[in-house]
Amino acid sequence: MSSSIVVVTAHVGDFVWRCGGAMALHAAQGHDVHLVCLSFGENGESNLVWKEEGATLDKVKEARRLEALEAAKMLGASSSEFYDLGDYPLTITPEVVDRLSRAFRQHQPSLVITHPEKDPSNLDHCRTFEAVLLARMKAIAPGHGNDFIKPPQVLCFEPHQSELCGFKPNMLLDITSVWDQKKAAMETMHAQRNLWGYYERVGMQRGAQAGRRASTGQLYGEAYQSIFPSVHTSFISN
Amino acid sequence: MSSSIVVVTAHVGDFVWRCGGAMALHAAQGHDVHLVCLSFGENGESNLVWKEEGATLDKVKEARRLEALEAAKMLGASSSEFYDLGDYPLTITPEVVDRLSRAFRQHQPSLVITHPEKDPSNLDHCRTFEAVLLARMKAIAPGHGNDFIKPPQVLCFEPHQSELCGFKPNMLLDITSVWDQKKAAMETMHAQRNLWGYYERVGMQRGAQAGRRASTGQLYGEAYQSIFPSVHTSFISN
Amino acid sequence: MSSSIVVVTAHVGDFVWRCGGAMALHAAQGHDVHLVCLSFGENGESNLVWKEEGATLDKVKEARRLEALEAAKMLGASSSEFYDLGDYPLTITPEVVDRLSRAFRQHQPSLVITHPEKDPSNLDHCRTFEAVLLARMKAIAPGHGNDFIKPPQVLCFEPHQSELCGFKPNMLLDITSVWDQKKAAMETMHAQRNLWGYYERVGMQRGAQAGRRASTGQLYGEAYQSIFPSVHTSFISN
Amino acid sequence: MSSSIVVVTAHVGDFVWRCGGAMALHAAQGHDVHLVCLSFGENGESNLVWKEEGATLDKVKEARRLEALEAAKMLGASSSEFYDLGDYPLTITPEVVDRLSRAFRQHQPSLVITHPEKDPSNLDHCRTFEAVLLARMKAIAPGHGNDFIKPPQVLCFEPHQSELCGFKPNMLLDITSVWDQKKAAMETMHAQRNLWGYYERVGMQRGAQAGRRASTGQLYGEAYQSIFPSVHTSFISN
Amino acid sequence: MSSSIVVVTAHVGDFVWRCGGAMALHAAQGHDVHLVCLSFGENGESNLVWKEEGATLDKVKEARRLEALEAAKMLGASSSEFYDLGDYPLTITPEVVDRLSRAFRQHQPSLVITHPEKDPSNLDHCRTFEAVLLARMKAIAPGHGNDFIKPPQVLCFEPHQSELCGFKPNMLLDITSVWDQKKAAMETMHAQRNLWGYYERVGMQRGAQAGRRASTGQLYGEAYQSIFPSVHTSFISN
Amino acid sequence: MSSSIVVVTAHVGDFVWRCGGAMALHAAQGHDVHLVCLSFGENGESNLVWKEEGATLDKVKEARRLEALEAAKMLGASSSEFYDLGDYPLTITPEVVDRLSRAFRQHQPSLVITHPEKDPSNLDHCRTFEAVLLARMKAIAPGHGNDFIKPPQVLCFEPHQSELCGFKPNMLLDITSVWDQKKAAMETMHAQRNLWGYYERVGMQRGAQAGRRASTGQLYGEAYQSIFPSVHTSFISN
Repeated sequence: MSSSIVVVTAHVGDFVWRCGGAMALHAAQGHDVHLVCLSFGENGESNLVWKEEGATLDKVKEARRLEALEAAKMLGASSSEFYDLGDYPLTITPEVVDRLSRAFRQHQPSLVITHPEKDPSNLDHCRTFEAVLLARMKAIAPGHGNDFIKPPQVLCFEPHQSELCGFKPNMLLDITSVWDQKKAAMETMHAQRNLWGYYERVGMQRGAQAGRRASTGQLYGEAYQSIFPSVHTSFISN
Repeated sequence: MSSSIVVVTAHVGDFVWRCGGAMALHAAQGHDVHLVCLSFGENGESNLVWKEEGATLDKVKEARRLEALEAAKMLGASSSEFYDLGDYPLTITPEVVDRLSRAFRQHQPSLVITHPEKDPSNLDHCRTFEAVLLARMKAIAPGHGNDFIKPPQVLCFEPHQSELCGFKPNMLLDITSVWDQKKAAMETMHAQRNLWGYYERVGMQRGAQAGRRASTGQLYGEAYQSIFPSVHTSFISN
Repeated sequence: MSSSIVVVTAHVGDFVWRCGGAMALHAAQGHDVHLVCLSFGENGESNLVWKEEGATLDKVKEARRLEALEAAKMLGASSSEFYDLGDYPLTITPEVVDRLSRAFRQHQPSLVITHPEKDPSNLDHCRTFEAVLLARMKAIAPGHGNDFIKPPQVLCFEPHQSELCGFKPNMLLDITSVWDQKKAAMETMHAQRNLWGYYERVGMQRGAQAGRRASTGQLYGEAYQSIFPSVHTSFISN
Repeated sequence: MSSSIVVVTAHVGDFVWRCGGAMALHAAQGHDVHLVCLSFGENGESNLVWKEEGATLDKVKEARRLEALEAAKMLGASSSEFYDLGDYPLTITPEVVDRLSRAFRQHQPSLVITHPEKDPSNLDHCRTFEAVLLARMKAIAPGHGNDFIKPPQVLCFEPHQSELCGFKPNMLLDITSVWDQKKAAMETMHAQRNLWGYYERVGMQRGAQAGRRASTGQLYGEAYQSIFPSVHTSFISN
Repeated sequence: MSSSIVVVTAHVGDFVWRCGGAMALHAAQGHDVHLVCLSFGENGESNLVWKEEGATLDKVKEARRLEALEAAKMLGASSSEFYDLGDYPLTITPEVVDRLSRAFRQHQPSLVITHPEKDPSNLDHCRTFEAVLLARMKAIAPGHGNDFIKPPQVLCFEPHQSELCGFKPNMLLDITSVWDQKKAAMETMHAQRNLWGYYERVGMQRGAQAGRRASTGQLYGEAYQSIFPSVHTSFISN
Repeated sequence: MSSSIVVVTAHVGDFVWRCGGAMALHAAQGHDVHLVCLSFGENGESNLVWKEEGATLDKVKEARRLEALEAAKMLGASSSEFYDLGDYPLTITPEVVDRLSRAFRQHQPSLVITHPEKDPSNLDHCRTFEAVLLARMKAIAPGHGNDFIKPPQVLCFEPHQSELCGFKPNMLLDITSVWDQKKAAMETMHAQRNLWGYYERVGMQRGAQAGRRASTGQLYGEAYQSIFPSVHTSFISN
């Protein structure tokens, strides 16, 4: 039975580095994967583009948008939305929460993937996490319309420095089968090419950790932390 | 594909109240469920038996052993071992760790279920958790024999007062289908009949929490906290 | 010597399920108990009312207001205020903080009872906690008027899923003597009759936990976490 | 109605600096206060005595024992026991746990006061905390004798560096009325006279913190963290 | 090589009590120390001034401003800015974040010193911490101008009640050499003269703790918690 | 002024992967670096050796000892001691603590480097941390001999899965200048050649994190968590 996932990130790069494998994997399994990027990361995460001659805010945003569209396509995303809210810092208004809640009502996700709660080096990430929780509340409330949804699980992907953010992964996703797609998607992100190697190594480390606990062989992985308890009918099928 | 689970508890009552549903459910699913009780709970958790006329330590232990055997049978356990280590407090020696590690090598569990790490009101529970981790280490070490095992996941079941123990459940198990078995097993525990109502309510609360996140209807549940990250090939199949 | 308590909740149901016993108990002891509900819970916590034919936002709010008034009366509240701020999500403005701080100045509470700090499933609760701390600050500041108050203790009542919210109760209140009142007040909340059983069981579990540490017999209880250290002149009189 | 308190410390100095006020205050209120010191602190906390000419282990222990007896008397202790287990490090055997559990059975305390759980600079303190929890378990178990006790509350007093130890005080005790006694008792501890000023300042800081929340005037205080939830019949009488 | 430090506090008193030693010490070492006070603490931390006859908001603010200027001068501050945002509570707007980020761009600090993240008794402190993190983000983003800075370390100084705020100091600063300056600066704060003794004792306690780990003698100290990992080329030179 | 460092590890591999850079760097800076390995990791961390034909416990231990000696030499260690206590699990007796405390007295370290406190997958690491704290206590106690030492700082190096162990690094060490030595030392560890790539990537990730905060260029790093507050006379010299 196919299901739906919504990925919500603060900046366009985040979905590629942090959950590109999950996107490609679940798309390949027949699920709809919808992407929402709250900003283009134009101010704070496009340093290399700003070094180009003639860079303007509009040009930087357009460059990042195109990269993101291409990466999302490579990862099999069913839809991509860019809210263009600005970054460093990102501001969440009630209208943003409402728009996101309507996206949840439209896509009826069983799972939302986003940033973890804390990141002292990047409060845009914290704001996005909070926006997801607010939109989730609004989306499940009957008073805001009959198309209210069942409360989806929220999984947080890995931040840049996990320990700094209090990130405690309790799930490792084996993304070996889609690693080539993720790598290709990362390499569309020319504006952040300084991060390619870093996140390839992250994939290898999480893969090694997953491998220690499961099968053998070179694996690639991604790490996630669940916010709500998951409901099971067996512990063995995993 | 059938798998194996080992349940390790400090006292005989613990397996019934805390993971009786998981035992019955996985046994019904065709998995082997092996039970190890480190003590009979004869000193500290058999108050009603001690009030009986003529109670002696041996009589109390035998009464608890018989109750436990009956409950384990009702829950579908493939085997039951009683290490008879004494309780309040329980003492873990290197020999106990070795015996437990040999049980792990024998049963090759993919999952071990035991107490959570902390419980200021009952250090027997903490000692059991630590013994499981030590035995797990010993069981995976090639130097202790060629029959070493792959490191199993460890899930902690719910303590008596969850917040006091820092228990943070991240998994809820729907035990509705085996509730009658669990209830019957609880009711073999005459020595602790004062707890029947308490743990029936725990089952209803955890069921309600599971129900809020999944399907509707009267559910019974059990709560678990995983110690190691679980490895997944999809987030949707759960 | 009689004192004053202010209870501040996000939605009308909260005061009944979570601190109805404390309200009735302290009212019976001659203290003034003032209730402030920031919203009616009309959007997110009135599902059963929305299923009724012809439900409108105004009708739902009025239904919940009447239920809340009746419950507050049953619990002996000296006053009840409904700020009608909307819910799912609730928005706290500086004006709300100011209004709440003026309520604190008016009632001069030695104790404020409210939601705990964290709840990923319901940020209205977090916002209310924060509003209480802000209003408390404003109420103790001489620059905002000579009627400033001594800083009251803040106690947090139990959320729906305690572990999910990091709730660590350090106080159990024996509400056995007022259980009938609390139960009757719960049963005025027809809009949330699906929760009656759940919170009756919560009362029994907390009562059992309180009973283990104090006297024997069937008890009902409520759990609280204090935010500030309490000041004592003896540890024995409790 | 008079009650009983048992104070258990790792070294002889601890009871004076950390809970001398509580001892004097409750003794003055008519309660029995029993003292158990697991060691004399002879190796690690008697530096000034070791600098004296001709210092031997026996002389140091005797000097500390005499100081402790005098201090305990000044603080109104009903009894003082010295287990003489050695220090730096302290070793807890099953026999020590048993002896302590028998002391609990003899004194039937409603309250045990001891070190907090963690202290990386001094594991003797951690061992003492753990010994108290073990002895408490053993003392409440019917299987170890009919004179089993009701489970007492455990309060942890303040360590030398609170934040280093994760100490989170939730109770402040106003010891102003017995400050002169505590100060005099501190000044019997010649072996640690370098700490007199430090702990006088601790008393003043905790007093100021207590004063901010209660009445005005120069106060002295002590800080405590409760391990188990306390049971209340009212929140106002404090 | 001289460097630059920016100190950001919620109220004017904070810089004196909490990091006056660090200011004087680094100024004496030839570094520029810039001060930003977001409010005068006029409403909530000027109680003694409000007791004076004819006190008005403007008079209180002016009195506090003059005290702060004098104290900052005594501590060797290179500049002092007062944003005059109001207090109890303090409100942070995007404009405030922008102004602070421009101050960071102007001063190019290698270190920012401010309040810790949590303080349930004073949310102005939390707001200030958050404003610093937001302004830091904005200051390092190329999209907001070519004068972007390298991300500075953030150190949090000690709050009024450290344990209440979850403050975990990992650095102690020996301020013995500038204690006289700090004491004199404290004594310019007539509006809060009730705190002089308290913070002199804080200095002595932190000095004693620093002394235990380093050299001997009467020391004064201040405690700090670093938010980001510090980068080292040796562990011994400290 | 040259100083002394003692490194204490559970198994022989640990010092290479986790603090080989710190060893080489401080040795190069003229400090004495002493190594203590409590076991050879012969049972649990020598899997590849056990696969060799004719492997026996003695052969495995000797192979690991030789590898470790060579690696220690490459890293510039002044001395290497192997306590040969066995592993998986490791048992710490009072005699081990005493021997370690005598090593501390002999070497007078200003710094001890060891495992972090927690590791559910490997309790040998926890036991080693605890042994270090116990030996540190014993080494500073005058009652155990006049050669008592000043309490050294304790730094914990990075475990295999940092988040699983609650590892919170607050210091990053730039080991770029000695990376070749560390890599060569890693490559002497043939028994664990499956980890070479993993720990090269760890070095690159920690280097990248250090680089973000300091200078640019390809860096290698190691992460550490300090147990005790460090004492500073300036924050800028770092």
